[in-house]
Amino acid sequence: MPLHPLLINGEWRQAQAAADSFSASNPTTGEALAEVYPVSGWQDIEEMVAAGQEAAVALRQTSPETIAAFLERYAGAIEARADQIAQAAHEETGLPLQPRLRNGEMSRTVDQLRQAAAAARERSWSQATIDSEANIRSRFEALGGPVVVMGPNNFPLAFNAISGGDFAAAIAAGNPVIAKAHPGHPTTTRLLAEAACEALQESDAPPAMVQLFYHIEPEDGLRLVADDRVKATAFTGSRRAGMALKRAAEEAGNLIYLEMSSVNPVFILPGALAERGAEIAAAFYASCTMGTGQFCTNPGLVIVQKGARSEAFLDEAQRLFAQQENGVLLAEGGVAHLVEAVAALQDNGAELLCGGQPAEGPGYRFQNTLLRASGEQFLADAEGLQTEAFGPASVVVFARDAEQMVQIAEALEGNLTAGIYSASGEEDEALYERLSPVLREKVGRLLNDKMPTGVAVTAAMVHGGPYPATGHPGFTAVGIPAALLRFAARRSYDNVRHHRLPVELQNENPTGEMWRYVDGRWTQGDV
Amino acid sequence: MPLHPLLINGEWRQAQAAADSFSASNPTTGEALAEVYPVSGWQDIEEMVAAGQEAAVALRQTSPETIAAFLERYAGAIEARADQIAQAAHEETGLPLQPRLRNGEMSRTVDQLRQAAAAARERSWSQATIDSEANIRSRFEALGGPVVVMGPNNFPLAFNAISGGDFAAAIAAGNPVIAKAHPGHPTTTRLLAEAACEALQESDAPPAMVQLFYHIEPEDGLRLVADDRVKATAFTGSRRAGMALKRAAEEAGNLIYLEMSSVNPVFILPGALAERGAEIAAAFYASCTMGTGQFCTNPGLVIVQKGARSEAFLDEAQRLFAQQENGVLLAEGGVAHLVEAVAALQDNGAELLCGGQPAEGPGYRFQNTLLRASGEQFLADAEGLQTEAFGPASVVVFARDAEQMVQIAEALEGNLTAGIYSASGEEDEALYERLSPVLREKVGRLLNDKMPTGVAVTAAMVHGGPYPATGHPGFTAVGIPAALLRFAARRSYDNVRHHRLPVELQNENPTGEMWRYVDGRWTQGDV
Repeated sequence: MPLHPLLINGEWRQAQAAADSFSASNPTTGEALAEVYPVSGWQDIEEMVAAGQEAAVALRQTSPETIAAFLERYAGAIEARADQIAQAAHEETGLPLQPRLRNGEMSRTVDQLRQAAAAARERSWSQATIDSEANIRSRFEALGGPVVVMGPNNFPLAFNAISGGDFAAAIAAGNPVIAKAHPGHPTTTRLLAEAACEALQESDAPPAMVQLFYHIEPEDGLRLVADDRVKATAFTGSRRAGMALKRAAEEAGNLIYLEMSSVNPVFILPGALAERGAEIAAAFYASCTMGTGQFCTNPGLVIVQKGARSEAFLDEAQRLFAQQENGVLLAEGGVAHLVEAVAALQDNGAELLCGGQPAEGPGYRFQNTLLRASGEQFLADAEGLQTEAFGPASVVVFARDAEQMVQIAEALEGNLTAGIYSASGEEDEALYERLSPVLREKVGRLLNDKMPTGVAVTAAMVHGGPYPATGHPGFTAVGIPAALLRFAARRSYDNVRHHRLPVELQNENPTGEMWRYVDGRWTQGDV
Repeated sequence: MPLHPLLINGEWRQAQAAADSFSASNPTTGEALAEVYPVSGWQDIEEMVAAGQEAAVALRQTSPETIAAFLERYAGAIEARADQIAQAAHEETGLPLQPRLRNGEMSRTVDQLRQAAAAARERSWSQATIDSEANIRSRFEALGGPVVVMGPNNFPLAFNAISGGDFAAAIAAGNPVIAKAHPGHPTTTRLLAEAACEALQESDAPPAMVQLFYHIEPEDGLRLVADDRVKATAFTGSRRAGMALKRAAEEAGNLIYLEMSSVNPVFILPGALAERGAEIAAAFYASCTMGTGQFCTNPGLVIVQKGARSEAFLDEAQRLFAQQENGVLLAEGGVAHLVEAVAALQDNGAELLCGGQPAEGPGYRFQNTLLRASGEQFLADAEGLQTEAFGPASVVVFARDAEQMVQIAEALEGNLTAGIYSASGEEDEALYERLSPVLREKVGRLLNDKMPTGVAVTAAMVHGGPYPATGHPGFTAVGIPAALLRFAARRSYDNVRHHRLPVELQNENPTGEMWRYVDGRWTQGDV
């Protein structure tokens, strides 16, 4: 079978001197899929970077309306082939077709693209600021060069490098994107790219605004993120790969936004366990095994205080974990990763309660897995017991008392989320007040009475957090318009003649609805 | 003379096992000043970091009003000893006492502290965002640990690590600061710290909210910015030191904001030269020699098109540069740096027109210096001809034509500012339209018809830009409230019970005046 071509500068082109080729496999069966894709050499990448740079120049003159219209056409083009795309994603990732891919993730994906379109059109994201007396005006603007997006395997649509949140945010802010497919789902990505290409052809946007390659040698990946024409990279994936890319980009002075790892600790306070332990166990089970546990916000660490009620909670959780069918993992490597992670957790003192092994059946499967550890064990090797087991696995830590719960909170690394379940009345309030300030500074999102797996795309969402969960706690990867700011530079115009200003900074409000910060007040009015 | 003590956890304490000691010198005379200060070993730094971490915990419970009141008391305490502080700064930096230090910079400094106080009290800086239906609420919050501020030599008050813009922004956002004095002006810094200490004693803020050391071994500096208890560093200084700190901080996953170097290109278009060449030459001269040229926004590179009018412009500039008294540099090292930088520019093809040598007289002086180069020379070694000569020195580049002016713009590195002078009528408009988009993406601030040295402290100011001018183009070091965002994390509260939310995220607007982004609208109202 011939190699599938790359999307370069608006055209589907054969890879030049591809370093290698690859096929994805079907995780449900373990069989290789038929389509063959190139591992690009630098020559392909060089063409994309050069074309991306030209696209960035053309984008200076491209209106927000053109960008918004592209994003909306693209959402429509995805919907027109939604069945085909969802089917491909199902075959390549093993995630359930219904409702996960065809309904949930598909809706989320087109909704994100449309929200990004609305933000681009509405323009308030740019935080236009006008000091009329000094005649200094500023806003956030596109970075001025291509943005590289490297997507993860676990959301083949909603975080796909060519259709997901990072893509939508970078485009809406006015940047060209060079998308690197995740090699686990190249056909899904190609079908999305075909939709993007169709939408681009009907658009006045520059053809190289959206480009795609499928795979790359690691050293070329490092070279790409460090290239001085590339203005930023967004990476979602493993800590090991993320750290190597971070170093390469930062040594070159380039921006990189990383979402690397998180165990998403959930603290369940005694009053909550007394009141609704079984209900929380069911929520925990559902959250930990959803998508076979392969969520960046999977609850991988649960902290309770020891006693009869927490034992009952764990018994109930264990019953649920053990009785259910084992899910399919995204890739063969996921099985090996989980074997290694569970062994590391056991080496660091955790006791295996159920699961812990690759599961029977064709394809890549792993048993639902629960481990337990004491608070003393956790504090003795907090790093080891925070090893991320990316899949349907979680460690339940039994703290000696409230004091030790707080110490455990203090020993946590940076995470995306932390949650606290407490009684509906007052009895957990004192402990909540001790725990929450400690957890607050360790995470981007603090939850009450709720598992962390749902990440709503709303303006106030923060999907981010301190290192090593991400590279910078001031940004979010989900939530529009805030996610756009990762791909923008803050720029001011000092004494620039009025007719030369971007219309968004001129005295008249360009849409009559755009929010601007004028002389110390947010307003939709004119200056 | 005994060593001056350090400000640690609210007390003046002798350095423990100081690695060394030092005295500043008077740049006007070259003579050593009498006061002796410690070069701290790690033991002192360790105490400050530990105390800073405790202060961050206490700051979780400290109201914005307490922080604002501290900043205002501190501004008042500085004013109460303004003569003494300005005199010390004059002796230590050689900058003119009047009007520069006692009037201009002193006013700017206390004004910045008061603006930061107002921002802390007003709270809109935190961009509180509420999605009422999903019950997700977010805002920017203090980072949760000490911020290290390392100030430069060239603004001993307004960018001093313990009184300048970075300090004010970090404190207003709710962070404790560990200030590293610039060793060129320790007594100025000590007097400021005494004022800060007095204000702190009258405050309910934690005593370690403001700490100070004077000097440090380079390896301890790298260790400090990489310490995992330190949440961010703000550095203003040389590219060499900045790059070493950047690497150390980023390898540890720590935030660092850098302001490193900038030549601030000024393009003077033909129509502007025809219309007001002599006037622009005078503005150029004044801007380039102000503060003996030691401004981060000093116009170190001027680009004109060759011809009789640009020769006349240069003749006039040269006449002004040559006739005037040579200024005093901040430090002995500045003389050697300029000798080296001018030699590098000459090696790269620039012709020396005037100055270029250390100047006569006591102390550290350098001649006003002008060089010229052709557009061809610049394009042949753009990096070499962008060598920063930090002082009263500038290179004038004669482009062959409009096309070459654009090529020169394209060859520029990231800078803090770029300026364009054009005719008051239409004749330069076509060239402006070609140049400005290229320059726009290279700088944080684009100016028209104005030299870059004035940096107003207003909301729309951007004192930042792409690497290597800074480390991240999304931030500004000047301008309140935006400068605060460097020292804050974006954090969301998902389903958190209403009474547990920070008052700023509760339904009722806590001040009746705070701007919040509620359900897609900026408002001062309640939810």
